[in-house]
Amino acid sequence: DSKLKIFSLNSNNPLAKEIADEMGVELGKSSVKHFSDGEVQISIEESIRGMDVFIVQSTSAPVNEHLMELLIMIDAVKRASARTVNVVMPYYGYARQDRKAKAREPITAKLVANLLETAGATRVIVLDLHAPQIQGFFDILIDHLVAVPLLADHFGSKGFKEEELVIVSPDHGGVTRARKMAERLKAPIAIIDKRRPKPNVAEVMNIVGNVEGKVCILIDDIIDTAGTITIGAEALIKSGAKEVYACCSHPVLSGPAIERIENSSIKELVVTNTIQLSEDKISPKVKQLSVAKLMADAISRVYENKSVSTLFD
Amino acid sequence: DSKLKIFSLNSNNPLAKEIADEMGVELGKSSVKHFSDGEVQISIEESIRGMDVFIVQSTSAPVNEHLMELLIMIDAVKRASARTVNVVMPYYGYARQDRKAKAREPITAKLVANLLETAGATRVIVLDLHAPQIQGFFDILIDHLVAVPLLADHFGSKGFKEEELVIVSPDHGGVTRARKMAERLKAPIAIIDKRRPKPNVAEVMNIVGNVEGKVCILIDDIIDTAGTITIGAEALIKSGAKEVYACCSHPVLSGPAIERIENSSIKELVVTNTIQLSEDKISPKVKQLSVAKLMADAISRVYENKSVSTLFD
Ligand SMILES: Nc1ncnc2c1ncn2[C@@H]1O[C@H](COP(=O)(O)O)[C@@H](O)[C@H]1O
Ligand SMILES: Nc1ncnc2c1ncn2[C@@H]1O[C@H](COP(=O)(O)O)[C@@H](O)[C@H]1O
Repeated sequence: DSKLKIFSLNSNNPLAKEIADEMGVELGKSSVKHFSDGEVQISIEESIRGMDVFIVQSTSAPVNEHLMELLIMIDAVKRASARTVNVVMPYYGYARQDRKAKAREPITAKLVANLLETAGATRVIVLDLHAPQIQGFFDILIDHLVAVPLLADHFGSKGFKEEELVIVSPDHGGVTRARKMAERLKAPIAIIDKRRPKPNVAEVMNIVGNVEGKVCILIDDIIDTAGTITIGAEALIKSGAKEVYACCSHPVLSGPAIERIENSSIKELVVTNTIQLSEDKISPKVKQLSVAKLMADAISRVYENKSVSTLFD
Repeated sequence: DSKLKIFSLNSNNPLAKEIADEMGVELGKSSVKHFSDGEVQISIEESIRGMDVFIVQSTSAPVNEHLMELLIMIDAVKRASARTVNVVMPYYGYARQDRKAKAREPITAKLVANLLETAGATRVIVLDLHAPQIQGFFDILIDHLVAVPLLADHFGSKGFKEEELVIVSPDHGGVTRARKMAERLKAPIAIIDKRRPKPNVAEVMNIVGNVEGKVCILIDDIIDTAGTITIGAEALIKSGAKEVYACCSHPVLSGPAIERIENSSIKELVVTNTIQLSEDKISPKVKQLSVAKLMADAISRVYENKSVSTLFD
């Protein structure tokens, strides 16, 4: 009788199912419904006493709904006498609110960490946090997986010549990520450098690095409205790039994102399935790779008390 | 320069405005918006350094949205160096999930208390909690106001003869509340007693107390789908009641509630404005009384460090 139990909540059932399949286990029986007034009603339909429980939930949109589902589930699992309550959060919502950029702003990414701990989480597994510093927001154990190898290997298998490839960071914040992918693909990097010469004057885009005649791969952690990435792609083409690909870990793709990507010169956008794409976000240009194996490995290693850090790159 | 500041979030702006008017102050400048992906973006647009801040928010539907708005606002107010962070919660959502009624259920009412404290609330003002025990879920100070006097005085002003009135509790859980109203109106009480003679046999309703020829006032804390109250009203009429009125503190009124009330023999349903009624819940049968003065008094007393307990009955 196994002492490991994986539950899925409502944000990303297909990924949770895939993770369970990878591990050769069945998902735990539970349901998330709503009372007539919209309050979340959780029921866990099998005993989990003494077990190591893993709850798979991305706090993607609707983020408040998904976060409250998760907190209530953690409470229920804890009170059902689980041995450990592990939260598997492929996408960590509110990660961009990770500092006070202006006076009197909340730091919601830290609030979320505190809420998870308060509810009763004993460990958290995440993937490509918007800022790695968010790890330090937790007093409980946190494992931080990265999707760069997965994304890099996809492009590696396309048979580009090493000398024609260049990995591009769309801003200065993403250079470390671009560097990691570049190492894996033995390619140089370039950086899109934006600056505003004077207040109220349009931004100037400058490419640091050589992209002329090259196949460019833009990499970011989150693609949300796709403004940065599509404007970046046009700047690369203007600077003589031969082709532009883009990739990211978390396809938030809100608002005009899909339209912008379809109308851009980006040949293919490669994303992972940390966030489930709704029908209206399916596009022939968007290719989704699965993180199920990566997450399944992490869960197995945590469960067997082995190091997860080998999955970091 | 006052050191008191009242902010309203999105659940019940009209009540917050009324409270501020009662106190002769302006609401603090703040806004709750959403980023493109639906994440809550709070901004507080004036200094609150060193102040006693009161945040007015009911966790009515959509409950998860309203609760997260509140938690993020508490975080922002705390980080903006407020002296105290007081949460004014006219309606406390998730209050009915206050115990494990079945195995492996969450106790969401306790979770909510913990989340508020974790976010940084230093004091909470609530009204007619579904169970008074929820006060004990908090380690911070909590003030518990009651609406019975407000509801009772409304009926008192209708000029019913004392000897024709009877106050009815729709179940055994609500007898204390009915008793309080009965004392204020110098009327006797009756109780609707439901029991199931055998499993899978329809419930039998029995009225404990004399209602024949009487004007009955049903009182409950929450009216949600209005099943209990409308079935209770029919039972009273069958037992010879002359007229049936109903009242409650919190008009959740979800699903078929309004239709049921309109089709019932209830003459008037008297509620308070702890929950803002959406357009589709306005009905000629539903009369809303304001708790603004009560809440304003409580805020003033907390601010002036005076006892709030005189507002308890
Ligand atoms: N969900 C969101 N969508 C867009 N912008 C956000 C979101 N959450 C936070 N931000 C803002 O994004 C900025 C952080 O982004 P970054 O510089 O990429 O780390 C902060 O100034 C935040 O106010
Ligand atoms: N939002 C809700 N709507 C309807 N029932 C609920 C809700 N929240 C909790 N409950 C259930 O209502 C019961 C408590 O109601 P009560 O007996 O009136 O205190 C519990 O068994 C809960 O499972």
